Amino acid sequence: MPTHPWERHLAANRDAHYAEFLDLLRIPSVSTDPDRTADVARAADWVAERLRRAGVPDVEQITGNGHPVVLGRWHDAPGKPTVLVYGHYDVQPVDPLNLWESPPFEPTERDGMLVARGSSDMKGNLVTLVQAVEALAHAGNGAPPVNLTFLFEGEEEVGSPHLPQVIETYRDRLACDFVLSADGGMGGPDTPVLAVGLKGICALQIDVRTSSTDLHSGGYGAVVPNAVQVLTQLAASFHTPDGRVAVEGFYDDVRPLTDEDRAEIAASAVSDEELVREAGVLHLAGEPGFTPAERRGSRPTLDFNGIWGGFQGEGTKTVTPCEAHLKITCRLVVDQTPAKIIELISRHVDRHAPSGAAVSVVVQEAGALPYVLRRETPALQVAKRVLTEMYGKEPLAVRVGGSVPVTEVFQRVLGVDTITIGFGLPGSKAHAPNEWYLISQFDLARRTYAAYLEALGS
Amino acid sequence: MPTHPWERHLAANRDAHYAEFLDLLRIPSVSTDPDRTADVARAADWVAERLRRAGVPDVEQITGNGHPVVLGRWHDAPGKPTVLVYGHYDVQPVDPLNLWESPPFEPTERDGMLVARGSSDMKGNLVTLVQAVEALAHAGNGAPPVNLTFLFEGEEEVGSPHLPQVIETYRDRLACDFVLSADGGMGGPDTPVLAVGLKGICALQIDVRTSSTDLHSGGYGAVVPNAVQVLTQLAASFHTPDGRVAVEGFYDDVRPLTDEDRAEIAASAVSDEELVREAGVLHLAGEPGFTPAERRGSRPTLDFNGIWGGFQGEGTKTVTPCEAHLKITCRLVVDQTPAKIIELISRHVDRHAPSGAAVSVVVQEAGALPYVLRRETPALQVAKRVLTEMYGKEPLAVRVGGSVPVTEVFQRVLGVDTITIGFGLPGSKAHAPNEWYLISQFDLARRTYAAYLEALGS
Repeated sequence: MPTHPWERHLAANRDAHYAEFLDLLRIPSVSTDPDRTADVARAADWVAERLRRAGVPDVEQITGNGHPVVLGRWHDAPGKPTVLVYGHYDVQPVDPLNLWESPPFEPTERDGMLVARGSSDMKGNLVTLVQAVEALAHAGNGAPPVNLTFLFEGEEEVGSPHLPQVIETYRDRLACDFVLSADGGMGGPDTPVLAVGLKGICALQIDVRTSSTDLHSGGYGAVVPNAVQVLTQLAASFHTPDGRVAVEGFYDDVRPLTDEDRAEIAASAVSDEELVREAGVLHLAGEPGFTPAERRGSRPTLDFNGIWGGFQGEGTKTVTPCEAHLKITCRLVVDQTPAKIIELISRHVDRHAPSGAAVSVVVQEAGALPYVLRRETPALQVAKRVLTEMYGKEPLAVRVGGSVPVTEVFQRVLGVDTITIGFGLPGSKAHAPNEWYLISQFDLARRTYAAYLEALGS
Repeated sequence: MPTHPWERHLAANRDAHYAEFLDLLRIPSVSTDPDRTADVARAADWVAERLRRAGVPDVEQITGNGHPVVLGRWHDAPGKPTVLVYGHYDVQPVDPLNLWESPPFEPTERDGMLVARGSSDMKGNLVTLVQAVEALAHAGNGAPPVNLTFLFEGEEEVGSPHLPQVIETYRDRLACDFVLSADGGMGGPDTPVLAVGLKGICALQIDVRTSSTDLHSGGYGAVVPNAVQVLTQLAASFHTPDGRVAVEGFYDDVRPLTDEDRAEIAASAVSDEELVREAGVLHLAGEPGFTPAERRGSRPTLDFNGIWGGFQGEGTKTVTPCEAHLKITCRLVVDQTPAKIIELISRHVDRHAPSGAAVSVVVQEAGALPYVLRRETPALQVAKRVLTEMYGKEPLAVRVGGSVPVTEVFQRVLGVDTITIGFGLPGSKAHAPNEWYLISQFDLARRTYAAYLEALGS
């Protein structure tokens, strides 16, 4: 029995709303594929039109620089908070297509799951959030109980290259009290989570050159430096054999975990067995002295992403390589900064590179600061209360190992925190074939979004 | 003033012989290029025809498996030694073509050099050797003073893939007292050398796998093994920081250098400055305790030829790689064997690979044993005497850092040693643009080959 007025609207429109979800899933909005540009634009049109139909009075598309950004504005709740709703309508590519058990853009129900590209990441969240807004307006005074600004981009799956500039340009129109990101997931069908931190990141490449040209290993292998040998010895110096980062000063700015931190992390930890199975590894590895969950969300890492140099073809080529390259990203935690970490790595390279080689450190990206949600943020307290009510238990506070640079952009440019609420589930194959969305989450999602926005307005 | 009867023939035909050299250089016999197959065949025809014209009574081509092998047989010196003359008529590719200062197949004279692809490696040697044989027969009793078998292949520059089988199949017809290889060079225009040793070789690849698939470094970098990290740590264990091979037992079978060895090696050594310039490096490197010349010709090495794993494109991809690969060749000296070295490396990998990774050692080639010319070989003594006479000084005994597997095949299948006499010079760009042949070597080469064969027959 519905207890909120807006629940009646949602219940009455359940089938129509679900059909809309299928409609959006049928648009192959693969942002990385130039052949899909028209489809991406069609998805943007669909989202803009759906916002208008929900009642959003002011909807426009920012075009001309990459895929469109759909902006919506419904500020009709004087004295109430302003919420910037963030999400994306683009999806990952589908290859390898032959591994899909049903066509990726023909949503198919199977065992309680809706299988389609974009179902979990994140068309389900986008649709249910807009439907929740519509229900609130319909059941209330014709407008939602908070001021809403919508920002749906079409380039999240290609790294949001144009979004920071859009946020800078439209900073006044995007001014808000906090961001509600729909780009996230839960810990399980019955396990609500709230992300309370994201790692920062910095990226660099190490280039080694030992000679002007590759040399014949018979003639020169015994008498000149070998770029691959130089690089592998340098690479091996970055970690201790037992898995600590060996760059001097790397951990200096990391805040020690308190007993409360450790208890909170343990509460949301998945088991080692589950992690091993999920990752497809023989066993876990990493910095000693910390649990996998602690390392994952709260300890910094120095990760090798790729390496190459010399001959890489079939068979044998007796060459002494003259150059070799290593790609590194570091995941950072408070109070580390990309600038300082890059400085420490450069110093480490200076100290460990042999004199016979030209070794350079090239910074690949400006990087992102680690992000920690302020626990006292009112929007977080409200989210906790609403999720507890909806799920019948308290949400887990999760420190995310990944980095979502847009979060840092919102904080830096708009000065606001981000609350992430989404309904993707672990194992939902968000970037793989046979992506699925648990159909039972559809009603829960619409109701949870509505309850949250209502609670924020009261 | 000619002192040998054959010198008159060579002098009288100097211009015609030189013109022949240019003719052969104009045929673009690039063995690796499928579009040049007809040109390679044309070069084989040219060589076969030239042998016939020199008087070789029995010339044929072995075709059907790769590029033709030209076989010639002139056994008309009863009681005299039988010499198998080895060489190749194919050439290296020419790219990058834009770096050539004249078209690679239009021989061009410049500053006393003849610039053309194949001039130094080794059409000059092939032509002058056949011309020397012709002169000997013409000036003698109508046949050369030793029994000659010619074996000119067209696949040396692609690794002689079919030659071992040819030698096996024709072992009876190829029976001889020793091999005279024309595929070599001198230490300088006035510096005769004789190769007295070649290194052996073995080749392998190390494959590391840590997971069934690449993983997101944000989600998993802190908790799973990283294949590139595992491989670089393993790679770094193969050498000590100061350049010794750290594989246990690697040096066990190596014969210590005697004072005589060291003196002989020092006599043919180029200066460190020369070596640095030649190799284009900042400084030399390698096993401590030995001079560069000692390392180059007489000490074994473990060389990294290539490495790859994970993301190698532009920019950044936050991936934790699930596999990584390393190519290794070892250069071996007596009494090392490829089989034992591969066994030692496999044991080293077993000991040093971490338990969380699947690490395999894949042998890439059967390998070749190191080759040492028996110093008492009569053909070597004769070569020394003749070179001393022609150059006015004793040839240097050179231990070659490279491996010429066909030498080992001759030794294993035919049971004979190989004497190498050729006229390529250091820096002649044999495998690079603007390959050159010092024109003054042309007469010296014809006379030296003739003098050597005559001396062998007397």
